[in-house]
Formats: sequence, structure tokens, C-alpha cells
Amino acid sequence: MDSQNIKVAVDPVVFGYENGSLFILLIKQKYGPMKGKWVLPGGFVKDNEPLSVAVARELKEETNVTVDYLEQLFTFGDDVNRDPRGHIISIAYLGLANPKQLDIQANTDASDVNWFEINKLPQLPFDHNQIIKKGLERLQSKVHYKPIGFDLLGDEFVFSDLENLYRTILQKEIDRRNFRKKILSFGLLEETGELRKTGSGRPGAVYRFNKRKYSQLESSGFHFDIKFA
Amino acid sequence: MDSQNIKVAVDPVVFGYENGSLFILLIKQKYGPMKGKWVLPGGFVKDNEPLSVAVARELKEETNVTVDYLEQLFTFGDDVNRDPRGHIISIAYLGLANPKQLDIQANTDASDVNWFEINKLPQLPFDHNQIIKKGLERLQSKVHYKPIGFDLLGDEFVFSDLENLYRTILQKEIDRRNFRKKILSFGLLEETGELRKTGSGRPGAVYRFNKRKYSQLESSGFHFDIKFA
Repeated sequence: MDSQNIKVAVDPVVFGYENGSLFILLIKQKYGPMKGKWVLPGGFVKDNEPLSVAVARELKEETNVTVDYLEQLFTFGDDVNRDPRGHIISIAYLGLANPKQLDIQANTDASDVNWFEINKLPQLPFDHNQIIKKGLERLQSKVHYKPIGFDLLGDEFVFSDLENLYRTILQKEIDRRNFRKKILSFGLLEETGELRKTGSGRPGAVYRFNKRKYSQLESSGFHFDIKFA
Repeated sequence: MDSQNIKVAVDPVVFGYENGSLFILLIKQKYGPMKGKWVLPGGFVKDNEPLSVAVARELKEETNVTVDYLEQLFTFGDDVNRDPRGHIISIAYLGLANPKQLDIQANTDASDVNWFEINKLPQLPFDHNQIIKKGLERLQSKVHYKPIGFDLLGDEFVFSDLENLYRTILQKEIDRRNFRKKILSFGLLEETGELRKTGSGRPGAVYRFNKRKYSQLESSGFHFDIKFA
């Protein structure tokens, strides 16, 4: 193999959750063929740079953000014309974050940065709407068998926050009683002892997700698993 | 982005199932740094070639095989030294086939081709053992929620074939009575009317998987879902 005219990029799809809405982190492109358009905060991989390092670097450079949860999603390269600059494949990553805990700032290739509500996304260039769609599908499927929802909540939350999160991600109503019973049966939520008032109802107990306990359970064969009718 | 010294390859991990054993399709490399070694039948993507076309082409060129089931698995590119020829990322694909229905023949970059039992694989060069491990994990997880096992069986099979297949993939015993009840409850297996004798027991009814019915059910929201205790 002497030469190959294909370039490799990475694109993070970072989901954020706040007040019953799911958001995606986008930047406004400062240079290039899509100057002035909102796009995913990705870019080209450097020589001798691991893919996972590249995606975290691009995200940090363009948005000032470091997220704890970042997993490989899918590699887009079946449409050889997906980028007007030539044959570029993109390795997409799924990221999860709590917007309140992040200080977003546009930098390097970005002239602006913002969270966009998933149901009100603009028409994006390249195949970025498709990449986001794939990210949402992975998120919707994965919350059933991994407790990744907690990466979208703050460290402490009342139970109705968790219900709202699942309702928002799955875009449907859930059976609250069964959901509560199932989640609590895992023994992974611990009460902080505090109460918090949300909305007009009674104050609710404040919980924390016990990550350490989950790691222990997981390594001994436990499967997190929630079904919705 | 003016230049980038990264190359893009594809590697198919094709599983075959026969007589209670799970196999992987490997070729003996004819050229290059791993000449004479058994490796996955992959290769470099051509300019302006979609990734899914590239992986099917490499597989066909090197092994003479075309498989019906081929899905993207994972992109390997965190170890920048995974290939001694330079920074090469590999987009791995999971393939499923029935060895009886395939006529394997070594060609182009392959001096030999063969099926290797998954539990008796040689130590492979590059990160190919890791890629196969990832493929097995995907297969083991996916048979719980997609009826992909049928791509590994022949068109017609007795029930014990299906039990053996699941036992082999999951590498553990399964509750036969529950498994049978659950699988039959989907209404996706149809009896051909024939009986087939296997082993020393009574002859068993011969079944066929109704793909068309599954497609219809799936598009109306049905989820294939099997649990094992």
C-alpha cells in the first residue's frame, strides 16, 4: 500500500440533560467550507495520535469541555462524498455530560459554542444530523442495560429527576411505580439524608448513585437491566 | 488539513458454526511483514470506496466468500503501533456464516484459508486476537436481542441445533425448557413438516426461521428478547 487518499476525523456527539430536556453540544465553524455553520465539535486525527485522545483533544480545544463519559459510537465512511473536502471518514463518539458542571467556551476552530435541544436541531452540514441520530439511538438503547443515565444527572438528585431523565431520553411515558421499584431494587442509590422540594409536590429524598458499588457488582457478574412496557 | 500520515484498513471477523463449535475464518498472509502468519482476511480501503464495500471486497478477494450478515463492529486505532507498517486504523466488521454453504479458496494476498475453532486460535499478529475477542463479545451480547443466530444455522434445523448454537455462543449451559418455550412463543419458527434424527434421541421436527415475518414484526415495534438465568 503506497498511497491512500483518505483522511481520518473524529466527531463527538455530547449529550447534556437539564430541566427535562436533552441537548447536543455544537460549535459554529470559524474556517473551512462550512464557515458560519453549526457542526459537531470534531476534527482531524493527528499522526501518531490514538483516536480516543484525538476526540477528547478536539472537544477540549473547540468547546473548553472535558467529559467523563466518552465511548466510540460508529465510523461513518459509507458515503464517500460526506465531506466536500474529499474522502474523509469520521469516527463518532458518544459523550454524556451535565451542562451545569461545564463551562463552555468557543476556541480555535470555533467562533461560537452552544447547547441545542435535540428536538430543535438546525439542519446540519455533512452527515452530522445522521451522526446525532445514531448517538440518540445508542443512548436510548443503552440506558436499558447500563446505568449511564447518572452521567447526565448531577451528583445528587431527587427521584423525579431520574424519572424525567428516562422519560426524556426514551421520548415516552414510563410506568413510574415499576421504574422506582426496579431501580431501588438494585441497591445502587443511596439517600443523602436531605430532602429537596421540586414543583408543587412534597419534598423528595435526595439520592446519590453509588458508582463504586456498581463497579463491584458489575465485576461479579451483575447486569443492570430495566424494561419498560 | 494538508497531510495526514494515517492509513485506513478493514478487517472482517467472520464467525461460522458447525456441529457444536464456533469457528473464525482466517487467511495465511502471502506478502508483507506477517508473511506466513494466519490473520483476519482484511486489507486497505481504496480511494473513494465505501467502508462496507471495502470489507466485502477484501473478504471475497482473499477467501472467495460472500456473507449475508456483515455489520460494523468497532474501529481499532487507540494503539498507534498496532501495525509495524505505520499508523493504521482498522474498522472491524462482524460477519456470520454457515461454513457448509461457503466454498473457501485462498486468493490474492492469501496463500491459504481456513476455519479455526474459536477456543483453539493461534496467537495472531497485530491486535487480531483482540479484534476477535470484541467480535465474540458483540455476538454473545447480540443473540439476546436480535435473532442473528439463524444466520449461523442452515435454512432448516431441528430444535436441538438451535439449543446447541446458543450454548456454544454463550459458552454456558442454558435452561432448555425455558429457551424452547420463549423461542416458540415469538411465532417466528415454522415447522417444515419433516422429522430429522440427530444423536440417539427421538427424531425432531425440522424448523425454518421466518425472516419475512420477523421483518414485519420488527417494523411494528416487536423486540426479540431472550434472557438466560
